[in-house]
Amino acid sequence: MDTTQNSSQLPSTDTSTTRHAVAVDVVLFVIDQGTLKVLLIRRNQAPYAGEWAIPGGMVKPQESLDTAALRVLQEETHIGHIYLEQLYSFGEPNRDPRDRVISVAYYALVSLEQPELRAQNQNGAVWSSVNTLPNLAFDHNRIVHYALERLRNKINYTTLGFQLLPKVFTLTELQGSYEIILGRPLDKRNFRRKMLQLGILKSTRQFKTSGRQRPARLYTFAQPTVIRLQEKGIIVPFAAS
Amino acid sequence: MDTTQNSSQLPSTDTSTTRHAVAVDVVLFVIDQGTLKVLLIRRNQAPYAGEWAIPGGMVKPQESLDTAALRVLQEETHIGHIYLEQLYSFGEPNRDPRDRVISVAYYALVSLEQPELRAQNQNGAVWSSVNTLPNLAFDHNRIVHYALERLRNKINYTTLGFQLLPKVFTLTELQGSYEIILGRPLDKRNFRRKMLQLGILKSTRQFKTSGRQRPARLYTFAQPTVIRLQEKGIIVPFAAS
Repeated sequence: MDTTQNSSQLPSTDTSTTRHAVAVDVVLFVIDQGTLKVLLIRRNQAPYAGEWAIPGGMVKPQESLDTAALRVLQEETHIGHIYLEQLYSFGEPNRDPRDRVISVAYYALVSLEQPELRAQNQNGAVWSSVNTLPNLAFDHNRIVHYALERLRNKINYTTLGFQLLPKVFTLTELQGSYEIILGRPLDKRNFRRKMLQLGILKSTRQFKTSGRQRPARLYTFAQPTVIRLQEKGIIVPFAAS
Repeated sequence: MDTTQNSSQLPSTDTSTTRHAVAVDVVLFVIDQGTLKVLLIRRNQAPYAGEWAIPGGMVKPQESLDTAALRVLQEETHIGHIYLEQLYSFGEPNRDPRDRVISVAYYALVSLEQPELRAQNQNGAVWSSVNTLPNLAFDHNRIVHYALERLRNKINYTTLGFQLLPKVFTLTELQGSYEIILGRPLDKRNFRRKMLQLGILKSTRQFKTSGRQRPARLYTFAQPTVIRLQEKGIIVPFAAS
């Protein structure tokens, strides 16, 4: 069957090949005031002028997808260190009312501790809680929900969640972050036991005092990069375990 | 800062927007003769004429990415039921020597039991063991390795691996499939205990006899679709558990 072989080839990308506009769109997460939030910008041109959207931009001719996503992020945040990961490509033919645009979505995590990020907050971009998202332009609500699902899944077996945290923190604050991301309470004893077992926390000689409570030890991360925990066990206890 | 707002907008996709050729490429896995294999086709035109590649094709104007991937697969396999999932988008500017082509990669799993698939085997496409892959065209080796990593990861917490299995099987065969995918032996007692705990297997009244061994009970899946197992525990025991 010749058709099988022919159909499986990439045709030459000459004038007969359809070309598509390709965008990158980025979901940037922070934890702020006990809530998981994403960065939204207000669109200033059609379509969806005046409406909220996640930051995005078109991929340039000589730019890799990662480079394009980093560029979009840096235009919004001006910060150097940011965790960025490709999420999913959204390619429904009618997702953009102007014309077909394929979106390669990314998500990024950053600690709100970074001062450049706080400054940015005053330049038209806002942080919106994932629980009270407005109607976003295009399929951006769907993209944010997809990113949230990925984040919740991945903090089970990687140190990804730590990217959202400040440099030093108490175990109570650490558990709080996990609960904020997951949207549900975790068992305190189990959480502390698993977390200390992993060997990824380093205790400091500093303590945090608040009110009349016993001072709580401050910890930092032994591993600044995101690592997989599969060989060491998982952070968030499963219901069955 | 006006620049922030402007740069965060999707520009109108008029003639000034760069357009890109977008392909879908699909890694199709089967288990055959005790080995995990992927489908390869031989390219019959430049670039990489005569060399091996995974099946692929350009995305058409009114086609979603999923539809394009399904079309490519059906041209190769002619089978109705197949598990298909988007993997990752590869967009390095020079990954195709002709011109820039962004590839949205997919991976798919199918049981070799399906007769349409066996027939297809004779039409120029071949099954190659993931352990002895030839040099593939473009960045297709990288795509296959990425798919393999996703598959190995995902069988830990979903029923994805079952898509590779025949309708009925013994527990020994089931464990064998997991070992083939993971490329390492698993503890028999642990594996059986976890697998039966999950409640996703249905024992049949059939038995399989081979040689002088005790007949082994045949099982089937209670859940034909791929489900997440996070709430019920995980299949493959971690080293720490």
